[in-house]
Amino acid sequence: MRTLKQALREIKPLDEKAMAAARARQDTLTKPLGSLGRLEELSIKLAGIRGEPIPRINHKAIVTMAADHGVVAEGVSAYPQAVTPQMVLNFLRGGAGINVLAKHVGARIIVVDIGVAADIDSHPALLSRKIACGTSDMARGPAMSQEQAIKSIEVGLEIVEKEVKKGLDIVGTGDMGIGNTTPSSAITAVITGEKIEKVTGRGTGIDDKQLAHKVEVIERALEINRPNADDATDVLAKVGGFEIGGLSGVILGAAAHRIPVVIDGFISGAAALIAVGLSPGVKDYLIASHCSVEIGHKAILKYLGLKPILNLELRLGEGTGAALGIFLVEAAAKILAEMATFAEAGVSEKDKS
Amino acid sequence: MRTLKQALREIKPLDEKAMAAARARQDTLTKPLGSLGRLEELSIKLAGIRGEPIPRINHKAIVTMAADHGVVAEGVSAYPQAVTPQMVLNFLRGGAGINVLAKHVGARIIVVDIGVAADIDSHPALLSRKIACGTSDMARGPAMSQEQAIKSIEVGLEIVEKEVKKGLDIVGTGDMGIGNTTPSSAITAVITGEKIEKVTGRGTGIDDKQLAHKVEVIERALEINRPNADDATDVLAKVGGFEIGGLSGVILGAAAHRIPVVIDGFISGAAALIAVGLSPGVKDYLIASHCSVEIGHKAILKYLGLKPILNLELRLGEGTGAALGIFLVEAAAKILAEMATFAEAGVSEKDKS
Repeated sequence: MRTLKQALREIKPLDEKAMAAARARQDTLTKPLGSLGRLEELSIKLAGIRGEPIPRINHKAIVTMAADHGVVAEGVSAYPQAVTPQMVLNFLRGGAGINVLAKHVGARIIVVDIGVAADIDSHPALLSRKIACGTSDMARGPAMSQEQAIKSIEVGLEIVEKEVKKGLDIVGTGDMGIGNTTPSSAITAVITGEKIEKVTGRGTGIDDKQLAHKVEVIERALEINRPNADDATDVLAKVGGFEIGGLSGVILGAAAHRIPVVIDGFISGAAALIAVGLSPGVKDYLIASHCSVEIGHKAILKYLGLKPILNLELRLGEGTGAALGIFLVEAAAKILAEMATFAEAGVSEKDKS
Repeated sequence: MRTLKQALREIKPLDEKAMAAARARQDTLTKPLGSLGRLEELSIKLAGIRGEPIPRINHKAIVTMAADHGVVAEGVSAYPQAVTPQMVLNFLRGGAGINVLAKHVGARIIVVDIGVAADIDSHPALLSRKIACGTSDMARGPAMSQEQAIKSIEVGLEIVEKEVKKGLDIVGTGDMGIGNTTPSSAITAVITGEKIEKVTGRGTGIDDKQLAHKVEVIERALEINRPNADDATDVLAKVGGFEIGGLSGVILGAAAHRIPVVIDGFISGAAALIAVGLSPGVKDYLIASHCSVEIGHKAILKYLGLKPILNLELRLGEGTGAALGIFLVEAAAKILAEMATFAEAGVSEKDKS
């Protein structure tokens, strides 16, 4: 298994030669130049990521990581903590939103218990990698130790490595964890430098008073912990979550293996901030599926320089937006690979007069 | 075969009871209320269109209509007119963008020659419904007669009727026709009341000088023809196109059969303006897939009160955006039908405290 240090060494820039070849091919396909817009851009990015002029997507996976958060003791969520393991069981039985959408796009789901605060019976579809039964309350001290933070990232690395062996051309990130918009807002405030109230939203549905309280809890957490914005592991340990660390490991592992990562909503975005903090080049391996209704997500996408491809006002998480995003990236790859060229089709090109 | 008058009588409002049932079911599914955003809205709209509380999408089709435009004699397009029949052959051989994307989403394509200015050999996949070898030059007189306008709409009605017999749960619109952004801009200016230069774009890729000329050609066409904004058939006849008329027939026919229509880009949008002009209730049957780079499309979507679901900066037409849109509507239907309820999954609901 790769350590975090090894993975960071393996992340390389995009393959410019493959990108140039993909761009040149796009310009020979039977359509006005650039008329497929971001599908063309995505296909070129994909070529650069995979290091192939005509990349194909066959094997698709979504990694959905679940964990609990000590900070729920402060009353930051509309749902009880028991929902985290209940939803994990729902994932395993196939009844959740991510199950429906992953099936719709033909992606497999890897459900990971990386820190749920309850025992979950073993199940063939569950990967048990519990680091602890939830984080500690970040409003009273660090959410986890530095060792746990690194371990959570390495869980993500391990999972990608295993999936690559099965065949993996694209991966999506997903999360489940009652309370996890709170650490995500904290991470976003610290790394992007935005004000806490500008990146803190209603999560699963809290009211104005609860929202003001949530902002105050995050203020307290940052004051007590003083995370170092330039040290992503420190930020993760002090105000993060196990699923957030795990997903940043998935992102880093995917980049190390030259696999595109479609990031989901706000929690996946926070994981991307941690991953990019550890290795700035990872940014080029990311594709944003949508912009969450959760307000902090916009700040994350701006910071990472990513534009969402879907306009669906989602805020569920689980990898639901990522699943649909994967399907669009696949469409982009097929356009590049399967469309006829002007020469093949005998179609006249633009008037040169 | 239905006449236009019959179809207009058959268009009914959405089924409120089915919508209420779909909305109620969405609120019992294992996710925070409203967290799947526009996927939830789409599923409810779909229930209202189909008149079923849990509508399913099995049969998907895209109707791509091709025709030529007399106005190309004025030099409004970057590509020669010969490209229209060449691209029809490309559709029939499976090499165009719409072929790749329709296959990706599992939709069949109906390719229609409704007015291409060239003989196209018969082909099992081609529906030949040629009204004339292209329209007349609208800068010098009406593009077509009133009879031709109505005939073009009735071609669309006929096609939908035939497809419904094969099984049809959703339809997308697509177009091919060198020069067809010019009539589409003219229709948009007349019906939305926007200034010509605000709804006229670069089509397949003309430069600034050519764009100024295109605006001037449209000005001339409106001055000579004086289309009556309150009479959609008159607008279609004077400054429209056969594929635009045909697609407005597809839209009207779909609404008459309670089938949702996913509209593609600017040309499909112009067809929607004609259809809604003939029967305002049709608006409720429309789903906008994307907002084209072609600037007039934004004005159309605003006028129709539609929000695009994709953010891909497309401007190809053919039905490419509609194909991807169909896949997302299908996702919405599956969410409603296949997700587990809180009770089924044994998941706790929101804290009521």
